[in-house]
Amino acid sequence: MALDVEEIAEDARDAYALDKSLRAHLREAIETHDVAAIDALMEPLHPADIADLLEQVSSAEREAWLTHWSSGIDGEVLSELEEGLREKVLDLLPDAQIAVAVRELDSDDVVDLLEDADEAQAEVILDALEPADRAAVEAAMSYPEDTAGRLMQREIVAVPEHWTVGEAIDYIRGQAGKLPEEFYHVILTDPRMKPTGYVMLGRLLATVRGVKLTDITEDSFRPIPATQPEEEVAYAFNQYHLISAPVVDDDGRLVGVITIDDAMIVLDMEAEEDILRLAGVGEESSLSDGIIETTKQRFPWLFVNLVTSIIASLVIAQFEVALATIVALAVLMPIVASMGGNAGTQSLTVAVRAIATKDLTASNLMRVVTREAGVGLINGAIFAVVMGIVGVVWFGTPMLGVVIGAAMIINLLVAGLAGILVPVVLDRLRIDPALASGAFVTTVTDIVGFFSFLGLAALLLL
Amino acid sequence: MALDVEEIAEDARDAYALDKSLRAHLREAIETHDVAAIDALMEPLHPADIADLLEQVSSAEREAWLTHWSSGIDGEVLSELEEGLREKVLDLLPDAQIAVAVRELDSDDVVDLLEDADEAQAEVILDALEPADRAAVEAAMSYPEDTAGRLMQREIVAVPEHWTVGEAIDYIRGQAGKLPEEFYHVILTDPRMKPTGYVMLGRLLATVRGVKLTDITEDSFRPIPATQPEEEVAYAFNQYHLISAPVVDDDGRLVGVITIDDAMIVLDMEAEEDILRLAGVGEESSLSDGIIETTKQRFPWLFVNLVTSIIASLVIAQFEVALATIVALAVLMPIVASMGGNAGTQSLTVAVRAIATKDLTASNLMRVVTREAGVGLINGAIFAVVMGIVGVVWFGTPMLGVVIGAAMIINLLVAGLAGILVPVVLDRLRIDPALASGAFVTTVTDIVGFFSFLGLAALLLL
Repeated sequence: MALDVEEIAEDARDAYALDKSLRAHLREAIETHDVAAIDALMEPLHPADIADLLEQVSSAEREAWLTHWSSGIDGEVLSELEEGLREKVLDLLPDAQIAVAVRELDSDDVVDLLEDADEAQAEVILDALEPADRAAVEAAMSYPEDTAGRLMQREIVAVPEHWTVGEAIDYIRGQAGKLPEEFYHVILTDPRMKPTGYVMLGRLLATVRGVKLTDITEDSFRPIPATQPEEEVAYAFNQYHLISAPVVDDDGRLVGVITIDDAMIVLDMEAEEDILRLAGVGEESSLSDGIIETTKQRFPWLFVNLVTSIIASLVIAQFEVALATIVALAVLMPIVASMGGNAGTQSLTVAVRAIATKDLTASNLMRVVTREAGVGLINGAIFAVVMGIVGVVWFGTPMLGVVIGAAMIINLLVAGLAGILVPVVLDRLRIDPALASGAFVTTVTDIVGFFSFLGLAALLLL
Repeated sequence: MALDVEEIAEDARDAYALDKSLRAHLREAIETHDVAAIDALMEPLHPADIADLLEQVSSAEREAWLTHWSSGIDGEVLSELEEGLREKVLDLLPDAQIAVAVRELDSDDVVDLLEDADEAQAEVILDALEPADRAAVEAAMSYPEDTAGRLMQREIVAVPEHWTVGEAIDYIRGQAGKLPEEFYHVILTDPRMKPTGYVMLGRLLATVRGVKLTDITEDSFRPIPATQPEEEVAYAFNQYHLISAPVVDDDGRLVGVITIDDAMIVLDMEAEEDILRLAGVGEESSLSDGIIETTKQRFPWLFVNLVTSIIASLVIAQFEVALATIVALAVLMPIVASMGGNAGTQSLTVAVRAIATKDLTASNLMRVVTREAGVGLINGAIFAVVMGIVGVVWFGTPMLGVVIGAAMIINLLVAGLAGILVPVVLDRLRIDPALASGAFVTTVTDIVGFFSFLGLAALLLL
């Protein structure tokens, strides 16, 4: 039987897309204020899918939905919502509903909610918690935002490091009912509660009773300081294939644990942020934002671009005589600038990602700079020949071909160098290179492109 | 005690950066062919860090390093290397060394290696495996590349669905020594080996013996078809917070299991691919590539850009009379095109990501298109006023201000619409929107920008 891979792949492509009729039915149920129907539609869905639906409907629909279904929004759905929208949804929910919702959540998800809540809502949330949970949440909130301390769960399964497999299993079995619902390893601690290693549950179960726990610990053991920024945490999980990691305070004592699912969310968010920042879109931008919000997010980068393109125009204005004499210059000059801008964007994107993944370091910087310069020169030379020919054929002036060719080489070389050096310098200055590199690099390539092309033309053609 | 958060953050920022002196010492050891010194330097490092070092050195250094240290490159390091480089490293290693290396690896990692090996190397790798492992690897290779079948591990811990917690624990304990080293859940199967649910190990350990396994299964149970594309698998893990998921064949029978660490790698790779594709950089580009390789990767997109910018120039050429009469037009026209290009890139980046994360669907497309048009109009109107004033002040011709303002509104509106519609149409045509949207959108904004500005100028100013 020949397997029709194409067809299967085609079907599988939309494997997790939500059913189209679902949205139509939901819309109808919202319009008719039919709470029972909304309940029935949402019942089979995962909280993450309900959150996605909330993000996809218009804000008017969302408001109507929540007004008639506030009892349906549970803590899980709230913690699945993207940050910007969570704030809006919290504002639409009655306090009593928020209190009910948070009681089901783990401490790290409550912390997440608190970060988006206003002061009055924060009080409602904290008051809703049991004293022990409240203490755990307040302890987490004492760490700076976006650090390991905020990310970790306080629920820990730890045993003395000198125990055997049998002792650990007996202890855990004796605790049945009192343990966290999900845990993947047992942490070994010394008498001062410093973690000294950890054992995966699978390994524990697959080992005979007499073996010492210290003999089956994982090599990948890496305690994470509670104040470590969350992007570093995500990097460590990704780089060292951690499944979970103990979190320690300033004295090295165990205070919590971070699991890979939390790290995966951070990693995904960081990549998303880089993509949006590189494109000059506010990193909190979301499809659920309205026109005014989106306009505000996009305006700043467009404004920066306006200023930089006016600067480029000032360069052009220096060559009014040349432009008035040879109209072909006006026709051809955007090509040089555009090629430089694109080559620069290529270099800077590679550099920004290499900085984020710690692949670009002091030791290989010179090699990469040399490479970018070389690539710029070679591509510049190829396109110089192409454009030289285009210039001659189109306008019949051989010297015009020489001018545009030379400008092309200069601009692609500069683009390669600016593309790597601007992000590196911004990173040294502790400015996020994803955020600001684009504006700098295209300004450089615009100015150099126009100046070299028009300058050479003024020199050689007038 | 006031906590100096800034200072801690600063230190923690480079938490996982490799020691600078390490590279200097490594370089020295390579130069002097000092295998013992290389061994000593690499000994404390995680395979992922050794792989990073291999990626960071120059190709000459890498060759010298591998020639004198081929015995040191183990399977773990090989599987940590990025794809392009792995191919080159495999070519540098003696066959015997490759055979030794692969024997330590899990079946999914061997599959990874095979994908990058040439035919002769593939034979060496397969011959090195035990018959059972070889069968597992060949079974995985029978699934299409980049699908769940290639990603999964064949090592499974499964028990009959009617068992109790006590029975499952006794069974697992009885298998001690025969189980995979890492597993996070026990899969329940019916008599025909179809998975019907799964129980996390932590939950199993935390539950009293008499409870039926079916009473403590996870809600998130989602069997994954072996032919499902890996980006869909990664989406499911991220969306539904899966830790691991059973993989089934066409008949729904259990054939393997995928764990979150593999899904995390795919998710990371997909985001990286999107970033590089959006910037017109070959998605396999890496810092370890040389000048020629990098030039080849970047050339195609630059060539596409050359063609599109020549098309834009052809538009400009239609207005030679206007340009010859009013030089200010040549000075100002790049501003309109550049603003359109940037606004278009903003819209298309948001659209490309929303398509990748399944947030943009048929049901909210109209709302998003309307929003993008609205944003384009508002930002266009604001920048029209700004540029109108600049035009009047700079060149003293009020009508020039009107022309550039009107062109700005038109181009930003078109940019918003093209930015959303081009990726959506490409996606419908099964073309990766990240790859091709940029070229289309900037062509549109260039042409519309030049045509509307110069056209209006010819109409109103001549």
